[in-house]
Amino acid sequence: MSLLVVGSVAFDAVETPFGKVDRMLGGAATYFAVAASFFTHVNLVGIVGDDFTEKDASIFHGRRVDTLGLERAAGKTFFWAGRYNENMNERTTLATELNVFADFKPRLPEAYQSSGHIFLANIHPTLQSSVLHQVKRRPKIVALDTMNYWIERTPKELRETLRHTDILMINDAETRQLSSEHNLMRAARHIFKLGPKALVIKRGEYGAMLVHQNRAFSVPAFPLEEVHVPAFPLEEVHDPTGAGDTFAGGFMGYLASVRSKSDVELRRAMVYGSVMGSFTVEKFGLDRLRTLKRSEIHVRARHFAKMTQFSL
Amino acid sequence: MSLLVVGSVAFDAVETPFGKVDRMLGGAATYFAVAASFFTHVNLVGIVGDDFTEKDASIFHGRRVDTLGLERAAGKTFFWAGRYNENMNERTTLATELNVFADFKPRLPEAYQSSGHIFLANIHPTLQSSVLHQVKRRPKIVALDTMNYWIERTPKELRETLRHTDILMINDAETRQLSSEHNLMRAARHIFKLGPKALVIKRGEYGAMLVHQNRAFSVPAFPLEEVHVPAFPLEEVHDPTGAGDTFAGGFMGYLASVRSKSDVELRRAMVYGSVMGSFTVEKFGLDRLRTLKRSEIHVRARHFAKMTQFSL
Repeated sequence: MSLLVVGSVAFDAVETPFGKVDRMLGGAATYFAVAASFFTHVNLVGIVGDDFTEKDASIFHGRRVDTLGLERAAGKTFFWAGRYNENMNERTTLATELNVFADFKPRLPEAYQSSGHIFLANIHPTLQSSVLHQVKRRPKIVALDTMNYWIERTPKELRETLRHTDILMINDAETRQLSSEHNLMRAARHIFKLGPKALVIKRGEYGAMLVHQNRAFSVPAFPLEEVHVPAFPLEEVHDPTGAGDTFAGGFMGYLASVRSKSDVELRRAMVYGSVMGSFTVEKFGLDRLRTLKRSEIHVRARHFAKMTQFSL
Repeated sequence: MSLLVVGSVAFDAVETPFGKVDRMLGGAATYFAVAASFFTHVNLVGIVGDDFTEKDASIFHGRRVDTLGLERAAGKTFFWAGRYNENMNERTTLATELNVFADFKPRLPEAYQSSGHIFLANIHPTLQSSVLHQVKRRPKIVALDTMNYWIERTPKELRETLRHTDILMINDAETRQLSSEHNLMRAARHIFKLGPKALVIKRGEYGAMLVHQNRAFSVPAFPLEEVHVPAFPLEEVHDPTGAGDTFAGGFMGYLASVRSKSDVELRRAMVYGSVMGSFTVEKFGLDRLRTLKRSEIHVRARHFAKMTQFSL
């Protein structure tokens, strides 16, 4: 079943303690689409400028990503620059140049209008809603990301979009801000009244939590060092950029592939989301996903199971 | 198999957003002993002043806690006062009055000298070592807690004590400080060179992590709200004081009861530690442990399993 993603395709400049890249491909929809394409067919809606070359587009080639919905406009592609602190748990935005993204009006090609699974990456809630209006049948799952900016500036529009959302995927600060509740279980109950039936809380180095049917399910973050055999150089987090969108791609890609939203499958989706995110952070930008093999995903998922399972 | 704990018995004054208590029984050894006594017999070594009454001692009555090693000295009992911030993830120490604890020299009664399991709560590393010198046979498991103060002030003495430690149980800040490594897996490898064969990292609201045999095992913190059926009032964290020591009590109590230190049992011990800690924080001080029943522990452990288990 095909999966639609609507969001940013961008160029990023990133500085971490492990290095500095002045310009690399990025954007929520890019990370999401590449990650999800390991599990299912992805339809991508976004916008790029005339500085977006065939070489940039090659990230999607040879993958199950349809880019018919990737609009090309005159001007420059969205650009973001940021710097991470020493422990990479905080980042400073150095530049945000919207460029062609400022006038982005998502338009779904005909073939995308019957998408059963939809991920609305972090954009203006009204644009998110406009995507849903273009879909012909009620989708099986609509998942959505948002951020503090929209929670503060466009609360009414966000509430309208949330009414049509099945799964909200945000971080813990956003969860607390949206619900005005510190306790995450109370926060979830508040959010369920707004529309979503499931809440995925992304917690960075602390993993992720799913609240569904009033139950919590927690997955830890992958301690990267342990997955490498002694003969290999030690890997660790080199660049957290895109980890959350990669998580969302693994999560939704898996769900679309199994065509189910049972609790059992939602839990597996959490694991595949975490596994995919753990690959992305190993190298800068999309570099690790570029070379990733499906077999590596399954090996790491089994490793992940070993890291969390116990019997009583 | 009996379990020896050496550490503080204290009176605490605690303020949290849920209330204020001017004087309540506390101390690492107290929380540890009460928690561990649900699993095994506990021998307690500590010191109290003449303000410690029979009523205070009654917390140990009717439990498998031997207090022959609880010394009574002229003067006042150790007193600690602290205040938690709104989200209870930070606390400010308002007062630390060592009183009789300043001259504490742990002395093991004869019957304690063959203890197979030992927990050295957070005291001067030289006092921790002195306990081990009084033990006649090599214990099966020596577990140890420490803090930033000893890591900074008595690094040499701490290293000597760590040489004889099997399991180090500290928080993430202490792990990073002791190892000078931010990455917790690297930090663990550093610590293993100092003596311990296992590291338990207590992460407060983010759960706990065990590193053992170069593998990580993570347990999330219990989201307290979900364990209560709708008809009951919502419970949440009311007072985090003693959570770490209760965790250690559940962990070591369980291990002593099964007389094993296999990876399977260490993982179960992590679960029982988390479960015990989740009870303590529901009420102030020892109030929740006072009324806790063994059946409640097992119910919550099963609930904990549901919260973390998945199949691939």
